[in-house]
Amino acid sequence: MTYCCALRLKDGLVFISDTRTNAGVDHISVFRKLYTFGIENERFITIQTSGNLATTQAVIGHLKNHLELQQTPNLYSVNTMFEVAELVGHTLQKVIADVTENTQEQSNYYCSLLVGGQIGQAEMQLYNIYPQGNFICATSDTPYFQIGESKYGKPILDRALSYDMPLSEALRCSLISFDSTLRSNVSVGMPLDALIYKKNSLHIPEGKRITEEDPYFQHISKQWSDTLRSGLQNLPNPSDDYFN
Amino acid sequence: MTYCCALRLKDGLVFISDTRTNAGVDHISVFRKLYTFGIENERFITIQTSGNLATTQAVIGHLKNHLELQQTPNLYSVNTMFEVAELVGHTLQKVIADVTENTQEQSNYYCSLLVGGQIGQAEMQLYNIYPQGNFICATSDTPYFQIGESKYGKPILDRALSYDMPLSEALRCSLISFDSTLRSNVSVGMPLDALIYKKNSLHIPEGKRITEEDPYFQHISKQWSDTLRSGLQNLPNPSDDYFN
Repeated sequence: MTYCCALRLKDGLVFISDTRTNAGVDHISVFRKLYTFGIENERFITIQTSGNLATTQAVIGHLKNHLELQQTPNLYSVNTMFEVAELVGHTLQKVIADVTENTQEQSNYYCSLLVGGQIGQAEMQLYNIYPQGNFICATSDTPYFQIGESKYGKPILDRALSYDMPLSEALRCSLISFDSTLRSNVSVGMPLDALIYKKNSLHIPEGKRITEEDPYFQHISKQWSDTLRSGLQNLPNPSDDYFN
Repeated sequence: MTYCCALRLKDGLVFISDTRTNAGVDHISVFRKLYTFGIENERFITIQTSGNLATTQAVIGHLKNHLELQQTPNLYSVNTMFEVAELVGHTLQKVIADVTENTQEQSNYYCSLLVGGQIGQAEMQLYNIYPQGNFICATSDTPYFQIGESKYGKPILDRALSYDMPLSEALRCSLISFDSTLRSNVSVGMPLDALIYKKNSLHIPEGKRITEEDPYFQHISKQWSDTLRSGLQNLPNPSDDYFN
């Protein structure tokens, strides 16, 4: 499986993906699921992928191929983030249609994608692209999307995340969401890829690969465990009627 | 959906279930999913249910009917908790077979059950009964089972729960697991039913219905939110290379 989450906040975009893929428990590999595109000072685009690995690699492959051969429309020829989402959605539809003959088979090849970025001085956008190629857009009410094994890490995001939060705080919150998921589900695994985009910078960030030895991740993981344990200890005891 | 969890610990058993059922978002009801059986000073049995409501009610209905008509085997005639689990599993198989003509249809009628208790001075047992009627047994290595919407509330159990934990602490931990689930998934809803059985007591506890107005649940829910928020605030800021 996979866990990816992406946030669209007042000050920028945050993307984190794991790298574990599995086809059965005896076929586990490390594959990047976070891809960055862009032209310095003009546009920044990130795509995160979850689902059938052949499908997600084909989608990214076609998008890159179009750029390389300068076939339009491509990620650098379209004018808005909405058109980027449409392009990615159509590419996904085409990839799935290529390997399936009838709709009943399609679900074997499904994948989901998160697409975020900014073009020029237009607003930053974040889209959640469904396996069917249609999509929804993040708003200030719902500033985050998750794909893959999303449930383990959702409670902390639901409680703590807000649109107005500084990027560093949101990053901490997302890393804790990953830490919870990693502990409860072996199909999500280190290393993680993290990327932070600052609003209106139009700078293509390098991103950071977070390994198990990363001192910052180790530190917050340990501190968070201690916080939860002592937090549980400090809860008052239930009243007697709980034991009737 | 549903969320039920049950713990088998050194000092006793803990059971918590939600009460929300839904058949689509416009058909939401409150139904008890935690059932208690027993004979004071002789045996104590609890069953929790998740899945198709007609199936779960039919299983409980048949078990009660057998007791009422004194048809054997029944929950009070069998000799061990293993036989209780077998009886429940067979009853489930029969209920599903009654409403389905071929195996392809069966998954529409699936349900899962947790069965825990103690008979005489034999060890307490906790079983997770699969839709097919077979089952697994909790151990000191894996002292808890969940059925239904289990993922949201799993991280806190994975981190904090241990076999040797006092019952009151385990209850707090489980309630927090429910609190996380309730916040992230509308298909799990209040009130909750909680039941704590003390090892070797052979006393049938009344259990406690926890409503939204329950002052203890409100208190720990609020305190836990504050703990998480301040815990996140207190994490150190990520190093600069996260922002490259």
